Amino acid sequence: MIDTDRRNLVLMALLSPLSAAATANTKAISSATGEPYVYAPDSVAHWTGDEQIGMLIYPGMTIMDLIGPQSMFASLMGAKIYLVAKSLDPVTSDADVTILPTATFDTCPRDLTVLFTPGGTDGTLAAASDPDTLAFMADRGARAKYITSVCSGSLVLGAAGLLDGYKATSHWSCRDALSGFGAIPIDARVVRDRNRFTGAGVTAGLDFALAMVAELRSRFYAECTQLMAEYDPQPPFNAGSVKTAPAKVVADMTHLLEDFTTKVDELVAATAKKGLPIQRIG
Amino acid sequence: MIDTDRRNLVLMALLSPLSAAATANTKAISSATGEPYVYAPDSVAHWTGDEQIGMLIYPGMTIMDLIGPQSMFASLMGAKIYLVAKSLDPVTSDADVTILPTATFDTCPRDLTVLFTPGGTDGTLAAASDPDTLAFMADRGARAKYITSVCSGSLVLGAAGLLDGYKATSHWSCRDALSGFGAIPIDARVVRDRNRFTGAGVTAGLDFALAMVAELRSRFYAECTQLMAEYDPQPPFNAGSVKTAPAKVVADMTHLLEDFTTKVDELVAATAKKGLPIQRIG
Repeated sequence: MIDTDRRNLVLMALLSPLSAAATANTKAISSATGEPYVYAPDSVAHWTGDEQIGMLIYPGMTIMDLIGPQSMFASLMGAKIYLVAKSLDPVTSDADVTILPTATFDTCPRDLTVLFTPGGTDGTLAAASDPDTLAFMADRGARAKYITSVCSGSLVLGAAGLLDGYKATSHWSCRDALSGFGAIPIDARVVRDRNRFTGAGVTAGLDFALAMVAELRSRFYAECTQLMAEYDPQPPFNAGSVKTAPAKVVADMTHLLEDFTTKVDELVAATAKKGLPIQRIG
Repeated sequence: MIDTDRRNLVLMALLSPLSAAATANTKAISSATGEPYVYAPDSVAHWTGDEQIGMLIYPGMTIMDLIGPQSMFASLMGAKIYLVAKSLDPVTSDADVTILPTATFDTCPRDLTVLFTPGGTDGTLAAASDPDTLAFMADRGARAKYITSVCSGSLVLGAAGLLDGYKATSHWSCRDALSGFGAIPIDARVVRDRNRFTGAGVTAGLDFALAMVAELRSRFYAECTQLMAEYDPQPPFNAGSVKTAPAKVVADMTHLLEDFTTKVDELVAATAKKGLPIQRIG
């Protein structure tokens, strides 16, 4: 909720002396998912940085998949965030929010710190089948320090050959399909495997992004970000997981998504037929 | 993460027979905040509806305050969501995401089911000081079935005279200032007082919106929405509240926000001087 420029200026002045103190608090911590985050010593104590964060956007994406992480990444002083699309034409989400790209596949920096893609349903299947989009993801993915997604965005990573041999997660409805791209599906909120960070469905982008902020800067920095966003969740119901939702809710939403999951299987089959673009990321 | 039209069509076919069963599950429930939600009997069993939801947008808003709720409201089959600004010019958030309005103060429906405003910092103070914005909010607020906000958006409601005599909440940094508008500040994630629903900072919009979906439709409907959004939060750190964050995090972020809180006090004083526009909502 803070103006970025103002925040960045003030934070830079404010937080620099604290880095030494923060170091003491920063250790390897375990996520709630059982996948440990391990912070490299040099990831601590950087209160400003120069990360180049490329966030793919495309028609039909789920905008919450994008904005959850974007709102956390926006706390990174000195970082630059690019909302990258095929062209600078406005992009409309699956729920009819239209946003403006800030870069194209051509103008996006070649060397990214973080490559990210949101998910969705039909729009995501289209993105994961689009040669230009896959070529962009494979190209930037070949050099990006971190390759990341939230929700069914991992289908785009998978189709681009970026999850072959990696543990990853996705929205509950299509997580198992990741194995079709050579990935090892993991039932967890946030999964890290080497430099791949993937989040589960939609709102998992908040947990994913706080983990990324801690990885890129420090735990203390992520805690500051969390307090600013007042991320102290108190869902009024306990239906956010297939493990906790009432059986009727799970059954009906699974039914609702049958058409999507069928199409995901078709995507996986079509990708297998043409082969993953692995030569691009070798 | 679901295409709205597809979802709406399928949900309408799927969920209609379930309304009777869902009724049995729907009782008054207590939120984690101690403010009870009480569902009116006729709010249950509506699997489609015709809500008119007006969401104010303005330069410098915090886009996560908007998108969290919007992504949950988008699950409401048959509802129409308007992103309302002074003009149809693109609106840029505090973290540089630019979105396109879909209605203006003139074209927004006169009778709204839900009037909503996101928060922010300098942009929110500007909106809460802008006569056109306040006139719009007071006018639609005079007839809206529900008057709502997330984060410091409650400052806009307050300045428009819409919280006088009501319990309400806000971002932790400016919650107490609501008393300057005649409101009763409540330290809670989501606060309901009659037809006012207010959420705490930024990410509280998710909890707020699920409560609203349950209020507008049913608990079962909200649980379906929650599962689709996989809202099963697992923050990697415990710093989302001033009550749980490390003392240093709280101290530093409080310091960072001093300029903002000073300006909030100035807004409250200026509003008191000119008087709340209560004649508009009497």
